[in-house]
Formats: sequence, structure tokens, C-alpha cells
Amino acid sequence: MASRSPRLLSLARRAFSSASSQANRVSLVQGASRGIGLEFVKQLLENNDKGHVVATCRNPNSSTGLLHLKDRFDDRLQILPLDLTVESSVQASALSIKETYGHLNLLINASGILSIPKVLQPETTLNKLEKSSLMLAYEVNAVGPILVIKHMWPLLKAGGGIGTERSGAVVASLSARVASIGDNRIGGWHSYRSSKTALNQLSKNVALEFARKKDPIICILLHPGTVDTDLSKPFQKNVPKEKLFSKEFSVQKLLHIINNVKSQDNGKFFAWDGQEIPW
Amino acid sequence: MASRSPRLLSLARRAFSSASSQANRVSLVQGASRGIGLEFVKQLLENNDKGHVVATCRNPNSSTGLLHLKDRFDDRLQILPLDLTVESSVQASALSIKETYGHLNLLINASGILSIPKVLQPETTLNKLEKSSLMLAYEVNAVGPILVIKHMWPLLKAGGGIGTERSGAVVASLSARVASIGDNRIGGWHSYRSSKTALNQLSKNVALEFARKKDPIICILLHPGTVDTDLSKPFQKNVPKEKLFSKEFSVQKLLHIINNVKSQDNGKFFAWDGQEIPW
Ligand SMILES: NC(=O)c1ccc[n+]([C@@H]2O[C@H](COP(=O)([O-])OP(=O)(O)OC[C@H]3O[C@@H](n4cnc5c(N)ncnc54)[C@H](OP(=O)(O)O)[C@@H]3O)[C@@H](O)[C@H]2O)c1
Ligand SMILES: NC(=O)c1ccc[n+]([C@@H]2O[C@H](COP(=O)([O-])OP(=O)(O)OC[C@H]3O[C@@H](n4cnc5c(N)ncnc54)[C@H](OP(=O)(O)O)[C@@H]3O)[C@@H](O)[C@H]2O)c1
Repeated sequence: MASRSPRLLSLARRAFSSASSQANRVSLVQGASRGIGLEFVKQLLENNDKGHVVATCRNPNSSTGLLHLKDRFDDRLQILPLDLTVESSVQASALSIKETYGHLNLLINASGILSIPKVLQPETTLNKLEKSSLMLAYEVNAVGPILVIKHMWPLLKAGGGIGTERSGAVVASLSARVASIGDNRIGGWHSYRSSKTALNQLSKNVALEFARKKDPIICILLHPGTVDTDLSKPFQKNVPKEKLFSKEFSVQKLLHIINNVKSQDNGKFFAWDGQEIPW
Repeated sequence: MASRSPRLLSLARRAFSSASSQANRVSLVQGASRGIGLEFVKQLLENNDKGHVVATCRNPNSSTGLLHLKDRFDDRLQILPLDLTVESSVQASALSIKETYGHLNLLINASGILSIPKVLQPETTLNKLEKSSLMLAYEVNAVGPILVIKHMWPLLKAGGGIGTERSGAVVASLSARVASIGDNRIGGWHSYRSSKTALNQLSKNVALEFARKKDPIICILLHPGTVDTDLSKPFQKNVPKEKLFSKEFSVQKLLHIINNVKSQDNGKFFAWDGQEIPW
């Protein structure tokens, strides 16, 4: 049994020929039940006929989108339960991935919250600020994704660019243009904005540590554009039609960025079109 | 009794001659028990022989520094209890200031936490990240000061620049250079950094709303330099002597910025020497 340990398995995998190495590509999409995360899972599976995708979400049994993909790609898709607010579920996912694959080449943090009726309101004025909203948005949008990176770090280090054309593993976290302080011209959405701004700072910190330790991991932040999902639904009426992207379009653009990322991009914040966004 | 209402008192105060109007200047220093906050209280009282200062802190009876100043400036210094993590204490302070003075011309958020033994560690690596630390730093360093601004807003609006040479009231919140994402070159201190980065974003939001509503309030963020206080004590050994400022020096510089602030500075982030810090 000792020789079947994940570490040895992982080493053995690296020794495979390049033809089979693509099958060793393992991508994790965190926040995959619906919206942009689900579309990432779909395109990752469809774009390659090899390689594995791990999709995590709070309630695997109630994501019809993921269950549908599981029917189509049974042997290459694994669904695991992960709730960002429960760190033990993040640890359990990391352990499961370690035991099954031994490494990761890509981590996409696609989760996020902006409005939850009666719980989290996108504030239109300082008068509407609620401590509970600020704390919840921070817990889910900033702390959660960073805890995922923390626990997946050894797997990403083990995986690096194996099975891909990249020089390292990639961590791509979904931020938002409204996270930018420099670009903030209208204010509002205090809880969401400040949590995503904090996510940017935390990701920058992580990127600096990866670089200092020469770990083969590139960490970036992505703005997907305004995308037609549940998250943007309540705010779509003022968005010009050509500026409201489909999930398919946005994820295609974001995967293009991810697939072509260079080590000098580590720590940067990109919009869907590849333009850097100011902090 | 009706004619003694705070609003009428405030209006009556505005009608005073300019000679007496300085006496109507009311400054609030939040986080005043020690360190930079206490020094702000001292200099505000010493620099003028008129004008009132309200100093808030968690435990008024145990701040020997404040009690000493109360002995010297009994009629111009009021000490109120305020714990940033207890919003009702913020509301109670606002009510007390409203009843006593009816307005505010200056609010300095001087509170902050960086390390608390066994509770909050300034992280040196992602591996040491703890959810509880991230949440606590956010609650105290980002959410707290913004809740203070929220509840003091009507008082600041009523006060504007009355009794000062400024065109508006000033809200100055103590941030830190390490809050800057653009200037982040070494990483670490995840909890502290990200909470202060979020404070910057929240302050920018507030500044934009004040400007849009044409409220006579200018909202800025300040980096005091590395200052010899309890907060910096554990980290002073690598700081060159000439870069470790005394509280007296730093607060003198920061008051110079506050006293000379212009409406176009609203929403900006300044170091002690008046240089703008990138986001
Ligand atoms: N759509 C846009 O226009 C837009 C614009 C800028 C940035 N973004 C960002 O892009 C990302 C994806 O957004 P979206 O539009 O796809 O949103 P969405 O359709 O509302 O999906 C949000 C996802 O986050 C998950 N999630 C929420 N709380 C979670 C938790 N505690 N633990 C684990 N997962 C959790 C949800 O899972 P459940 O199904 O369990 O709730 C869902 O899978 C977000 O980070 C968002 O901020 C979106
Ligand atoms: N010193 C530096 O080198 C430096 C550098 C950059 C930025 N700053 C910033 O400058 C500000 C002042 O720092 P300092 O050096 O004067 O720190 P300090 O000497 O440690 O004082 C911190 C103050 O914050 C108060 N505080 C902590 N938690 C609080 C809460 N829950 N409610 C209300 N008050 C609370 C403390 O009150 P208690 O006495 O009750 O604990 C104390 O008055 C902070 O925002 C800090 O981040 C300092």
C-alpha cells in the first residue's frame, strides 16, 4: 500500500510520456454549482478530451447543472461538497483531491455573493450599511477563496504546469472591476466592493509569497465583465445589451487569459479582455 | 426647554461672531486611549485655547493618558466610552455629542489593531492564516471606523467648517502604507493589510457620497509613518532610527495635512509628509 501513496503516484504520473501527461491535468473549480463557475467546468471538460475536473459547491445534489455534466463526463468530473464558510469542508476537499490525484494544475475561485434577500443588500448609501452584511461579504468573498488557496497550495506546488503548456499551476480568483479603488467613481455596494478589494490585496500577498519561494504557481485576479447570471440579474436593467455578456463568452475569454498566462503576470488583475485593472 | 434643543443650540452657535466661533469647534478622536490617538487629543487641546475635543475609547477609566489631560483641560475635553465592535456604543456616543454640542468639525479614526498575543498574529506566511484573525482585523480596522462615520455623519454635516479655516468638516481615518496593493512588495500581515485596504475602499465610497450630496465634509486616509507606539513595538528592531517617528512628530505632520486639506483632497490617501500613496 505504501507504494500507492499520493506522493509516489504523483511522481509516477510525472514520469509518464507527454502523450499521456495531458490526462494528468487536474483543474479545480470552486463555486461551481451555477453561473460562471459551472460554465468553467463545462468548457474545461469540453475543450479537452483528457484531463480531470474537480467541481466543488455547497450542495452537490441540488446543482442540476453539475449533475447533468456528470452524466456526460462521468470519468473526468468529480463533484465535492465545499462551503467557503466551513473551513473543515475546504480541508476535506484538499484531502480528497490529494488522495485521488495527488496534485492540481489549476484552481479557479468562482464563488461570490453580492445580494441575498433580507441578508445582504448591495448598499446604495452609507446610511444602509449593516455590520452583518460587511462581515458576511468579507467571509465569503475574501476569506473563503484565500483559505481555499491555503489548503490547495501543496497540491498546486506538486502540480505546477504538468500536462499543460504553462510553466506553472494557475490560481485564478474571480474579483470584480468594482473592487478597484482607483477606478471607483460612483461608490455604493460597500460590502461587496470592500470584500473584493480585500481579496485583491490577499491575492497579491499570496502571489508575492509564491514568487519568493519559487513555487511553480501563478496567481491572478479576473474581472469577467457584466455577465448574465443570477448574481447580476437584479442589476441588468441599466446595462446596455452589448455590455451584458453570456457566460459562454466571458468564460471563453477568461480561459484564454488563464491558458496564456506568463510568470510575469503573477499578482496581476485582468479584465475579460486582458486589460489590467488599476488597484 | 424646547429652545435648548441641540439643533437650535447649533443654529444659535453658528450665529455667533467669528471671535467666539472658534469655541464652537468640536473635534472627535476615536481610539484615543493611547498611542497616536491620545497624542491627537493632546495636540488638539494644546494648539488652541478654544474649541472642544471629544475623546472616545473602550475603557475611559483605565486610560491614564486621557485622565491626565482631563485634569489639565477639564472644560474642553469630554471622554466617552466607545468600543468599535459594539455598534450601540457608537450610537450612544453620537447621541451624547449631538445633545452636548449639536455638531462636529473633525472626526479622527485613530484606532487600529495589528497584533494581539494569542488572538491576532501578523502573518508571515499563507500557512499561518487563520479565519478568526482575518475576521477580527476586518471588524475592528475596516467595519468599525466606517460605522463611526455613518453615525457621526449628521453631526459632521451640521458642523462643516464652522470655527475653522476650512470649507468643510474633515474625516481622517488612520490607514497604513501596507494597505496599498500597488506598493505591496513583500507580502505578509494578511489580516492587517487586507483590513486596511478594505478601509481605504470604504472611505473612498464615503467620500464619493459626501461629494455627490454636496455635504461640507472632506474624507481622507492617513499613513502616519512608522511611529513609536505599542502597535509598532514588536516590529521596531529592523526600523532604522531616523525612520521611527515619535508620536509628537507624526501627529504634528498629520494635523498639518488635516488643517490644510482642500475639497479636491476628498477621497485621497496621504502619507505623513503629504505625499499621496497609490491604492
Ligand atoms: N456576473 C457578473 O456580472 C459578475 C461581475 C463581476 C464579478 N463577478 C464575480 O464572478 C464570480 C461568479 O459570479 P456569478 O455571476 O457566477 O454568480 P452566481 O451565479 O450568483 O454564482 C455564485 C456562486 O458562488 C457560490 N457560493 C456562494 N456562497 C458560497 C459559499 N459560502 N460556499 C461556496 N460557494 C458559494 C454559489 O453557490 P450556491 O449555488 O450554493 O449558492 C454559486 O455557485 C463571483 O465571484 C462574482 O463576484 C460576477
Ligand atoms: N504605529 C505605527 O507605526 C503605525 C503605522 C501605520 C499605521 N498606524 C495606524 O495608526 C493608528 C493608531 O495606531 P497606534 O500606533 O497609535 O496604535 P496603539 O498605540 O496600539 O493604539 C491603538 C488604539 O486603538 C484602540 N482600539 C483597539 N481596538 C479597539 C476597539 N475595539 N474599539 C475602540 N478602540 C480600539 C486602542 O484602545 P485600547 O487601549 O482600548 O486597546 C488604542 O487606543 C492605527 O489605525 C494603526 O493601524 C500605526
